[in-house]
This record gives sequence, C-alpha cells and structure tokens, in this order.
Amino acid sequence: MSETPQPRDTSRPVHIAICAPAAPITRAEARQVTALAAEAFPQAHLHIHQQCFAEASHFAGDDATRLAAFLDCANDPAMDAVWFARGGYGSNRIAAAAIAGLEAAARAKAFLGYSDMGYLLGGLYRAGIGRPAHGPMLADIRRGDHAGGGPGAGGGEVAVRRALGWLCGETTGLEPSLGADTGPAAVASAAASAAASAAPAAAPAAAFNLMTLAMLCGTPLMPDLAGHVVMVEEVSEHLYAIDRLFFHVTTHLAGQGIAGLRLGRISDVPENDRPFGATPEEIARDWCARHGIAFLGAADIGHDAGNRIVPFGGRG
Amino acid sequence: MSETPQPRDTSRPVHIAICAPAAPITRAEARQVTALAAEAFPQAHLHIHQQCFAEASHFAGDDATRLAAFLDCANDPAMDAVWFARGGYGSNRIAAAAIAGLEAAARAKAFLGYSDMGYLLGGLYRAGIGRPAHGPMLADIRRGDHAGGGPGAGGGEVAVRRALGWLCGETTGLEPSLGADTGPAAVASAAASAAASAAPAAAPAAAFNLMTLAMLCGTPLMPDLAGHVVMVEEVSEHLYAIDRLFFHVTTHLAGQGIAGLRLGRISDVPENDRPFGATPEEIARDWCARHGIAFLGAADIGHDAGNRIVPFGGRG
Repeated sequence: MSETPQPRDTSRPVHIAICAPAAPITRAEARQVTALAAEAFPQAHLHIHQQCFAEASHFAGDDATRLAAFLDCANDPAMDAVWFARGGYGSNRIAAAAIAGLEAAARAKAFLGYSDMGYLLGGLYRAGIGRPAHGPMLADIRRGDHAGGGPGAGGGEVAVRRALGWLCGETTGLEPSLGADTGPAAVASAAASAAASAAPAAAPAAAFNLMTLAMLCGTPLMPDLAGHVVMVEEVSEHLYAIDRLFFHVTTHLAGQGIAGLRLGRISDVPENDRPFGATPEEIARDWCARHGIAFLGAADIGHDAGNRIVPFGGRG
Repeated sequence: MSETPQPRDTSRPVHIAICAPAAPITRAEARQVTALAAEAFPQAHLHIHQQCFAEASHFAGDDATRLAAFLDCANDPAMDAVWFARGGYGSNRIAAAAIAGLEAAARAKAFLGYSDMGYLLGGLYRAGIGRPAHGPMLADIRRGDHAGGGPGAGGGEVAVRRALGWLCGETTGLEPSLGADTGPAAVASAAASAAASAAPAAAPAAAFNLMTLAMLCGTPLMPDLAGHVVMVEEVSEHLYAIDRLFFHVTTHLAGQGIAGLRLGRISDVPENDRPFGATPEEIARDWCARHGIAFLGAADIGHDAGNRIVPFGGRG
C-alpha cells in the first residue's frame, strides 16, 4: 500500500467497535468508559457489542457467540477500529476461524488489546490484516495501580485514555523505545520500510504476553517475527514458570531470527516455597544469551495501568 | 539390534544410578528407599549420587553440578539404569548438553522418571539413546495418596516398588493399555516392529506431563512421535490452563501424525473464580476432534502413587 503517514483529523468521528473474545465485562465498566470517552474524546463513538456482557461458564458467551461478535465488529465497514474489551482466556479457541472469516472491511482497521488477545493480534499480523496493536483494553478501567496513585486513584482512567487516544490518532501513548510515527495512519507503511533495516533501532516491533506467545509458537497463528524487536510481559506466574516459558519462547524466536528482545513487567509473581535464584531480567538475559538473541533492555508494557502501546510492525 | 525379549535373570545384580536433574531429595527419603530396595529387590543396588542432596536456590545444585551428575550416572559402564530422583523444575536447562555428552555406555541403559524429567526422556528418545520410560521416581516415596490408603498409608512404597520392579525386569507395573512385553529387555526391539503397524493397539507409546510436552514442542529436544500413542497427565493447573495447553500440544501433535492420545489423571486442579464449563476429558476430546487426532480413552498415569510405567516406544 502507498498510504502516506499523516495526522488524523480530530474533528472526524472515529467509530470503535468493542467485543470480548475471551472474558466478559460488566455494564458498569461499559458505562464508565463510555462517559470517559464522551468527555475526553468527543470524536470517538463507542459501539459496545452486547456479546461483551454474555456469560457462558468461563467465557463471554460460547465459542460461536464470541466468534460472531468479533466478525460483526471486524467486518463492519462503518467501523474504524476493533477494541477488545478484556482478556482472560479463550480467544485462541476462535482465532483461526476469526481470521478466516475476515472480509475486506477488516483490512483498514486497528485492532487493540493485549494478554489473551495476543492470539488474535498474532493471527492478524501473520495474515497481514489490519493494524494489530498491543495496548490497554476497556476492562483496564478497573485498575488503580498507576504510578502515583493507590487503588482507586484513577490508574484505570489513564490506561483507557491512552487506548482511546491512540485509536483517535494520538502517538503519545506509544512504548518509548518506538519512534513517534507509529500511529494508526503510519503503521501500514512502516513494516515495509522497517524490514529493510537490520538495526534494532529501526526494526519493526511486536508485543505479547509471555504465556500467550509460548502457546502461539509453532501454530498456524504465529506470525513471522524475523527482524522484529519482540517485547514480552507476564503476570501471576512463578519465576520457575517464567524461566520455563523463556526456554520455549527463545528457542522458537531464535529460529525466526528476531532483531532482539525487550522485557516488559513481570508482575504479581507468587511466592514459592523456595527462592528461584534469579530475577526476571537475569532470566531473560540468560535465555537470550543461550540462543544468541540480543537483549535490548526494558519495555514499558505489563498487566497494569502503565501498559504502553506497541503497534505491530511499528518502527522505533 | 537383534536382542531377543526374555525375562531378566533375577539373581543377577542390577546397578541403578540415581541423580536429580531438577529438585533435590532428602537423606531420609534416600534411606527409606534404600531400605525398601534391600528388602524387596535384593538384586537391586542403588547408587545415589551425592548431587541428589545439593541445594542451589530452586535446584539440586547449579546447572553444571546437575549436568555433571547426570553424565556421571549415564556414562558409567557399571550401571544398568539411571533412575531420576525427583521432578520439580530444571532438567530443560541442562537437557541439550546432557544428551550431547552421552557416551556409548549410555546406550543400553533404562532411564526412568516423569514430570519435569520429560525434557530428558524426550531428548533421549529423539536421539535414540537408551530406553527412556515414564514412571515413578525415588521422591514418590513421600506419597500417601494411593487408592485404599490415606496419607502415610504406604502409597509411596507401592510407587517405588513399581519403579524398582520395572528396573529389575518386571512387567507388572506397565500402563494397562500396553502389552506385557515392554520390560527393559524387550523395549529395544519393540520400536522397529511396532513402527510397521498403523493400528493404535500395536503403536509405540510415549508419556509426558502436559506442560512439559507443551514446552518441548518445536524445540530440538522434541522426539518424532509419528505413529505413537501419546499419553499426557497434569497436576495443579487450572482447567483453563489445561485447555490452553491442549490447544498448543494438539496443534503440534497433529502435525506429527500421532496414532492417538490417551488422557492420564488431571489432579489437584485449583478452584477458579468461575467454573470452566468442561471436564478434562471433554477438553481433551474437543481438541483432539479439532485436530483430527484419535482420542483413545484414559491412561493410568498421573502425579500420584498409582502412576504406571510407559516405556517410550513400548508397544501395546
């Protein structure tokens, strides 16, 4: 495509379709985010699919319900973006059918989410469909863990504003190691130019939850990350499990020839019966060294309100 | 090899080397098992490597210590078998170097263990070295969960007797879906003859902890399981995590063309904040059906004293 990067017109309405391919949200959360958007981003029109409130055991509706809602959102030509409501678990169960069901109207859209949504983001990126990006979701409104504020102090609002801002064309919420020209309008042209350079500073990027990336490896949803800076983050896993996931993921990524790895936050690590003996950064450095992968330092992503945005293919 | 299956001579001494590639055991456990062996299997001589008692943070000694002990045991021509002391986590960190360091003396040995030992068993089987088998370890002496007995009621002794019996040539401890002629002396010749048949009843077998197999998939340690009946078991994982692991594992196994899958016990599942909505068997059947893998029913393996023995390549 020959689309030229340019600032988005903030007076133009931005239609954002919201669905929940894994776990449901509450109506209170939906109201809170709708109110926030109306105040801070009047150009943003949120279209919250009723499926977001469905409940079927572990999931926001059964597989067929979640798949249909995703396709409703992604294939609607009136929508500019698909914003995922919440993670949890379950998007892998519908991801292959979801990608296969996408039509032309999906190709120009941004798709924003993280955690379990990595199955869909990875599959979209592999298929070259839309502009997948790793970043906050609607359900992050419940977070109160932003730096400077305790629980309930509004960290969730900061995360949601960051997401809505990016969906409306802002670039201020991007992960800091990326360049500024990775807004939705710019990403489409970035991959081609970035792929020509082997230097990490100009490399395309992708970001994943570590477990999600481990489960993606070797499946038909796994994108080609050759030449990419890959960022990973994790939450609520023991350090031995982090080490185990790094064993698996770095083995696969080394085979792909990535440009390097950045480590996001490894948070809420449960206490074990004995100390593991290495920090998350030491674990990441160890496995990168074993597989000849460049360790590039920290990434400002994680399961928290500070989680910054990483457009897939966006160059640094 | 043209070795003819035959009952092992019970008057001949069997030398069993014991090391701990992941977590350590206690000296009390070692004494308990040594006493049990002396009473029940006088022909068995246990050679417990001092590394089994080493402690370095999470592990039974650092990587170099654990690797050296494994190679001491496996490359000792005076030893008939390597029996792993305990699982935990860590054999993946040394497995590639462990396989690379094996000498001729390792080729005739049985290697017995399960859980985290799957990295070594898988790597050995891939390399065609020795007779890897999934079954109880020394540390199972601490178990009291055998059917018919509460904690401390001797379930651990039953497990250890099963392991020692197999190492001494008995076939009574084999997983019931396997045939009887899969003792150590028989296994070497089984793979070649079994590979000629596509029927599950005559297929070679392999058994793994589900997480361990997931982490093996796509790595240089992963054996070729084409035509095999693959048995999996898991402990202490949420059902959504079981579902997620089946997504990953069945995708990989389908690509290998396995003969079918058997489900061992999925035990000690933690309670979640909401029900998952499917039993372990329903999860296994679902993912097998999605990938065209034959679901063959239950396997009598698990993280418990009832854990039966599955020689890799042993035919049913």
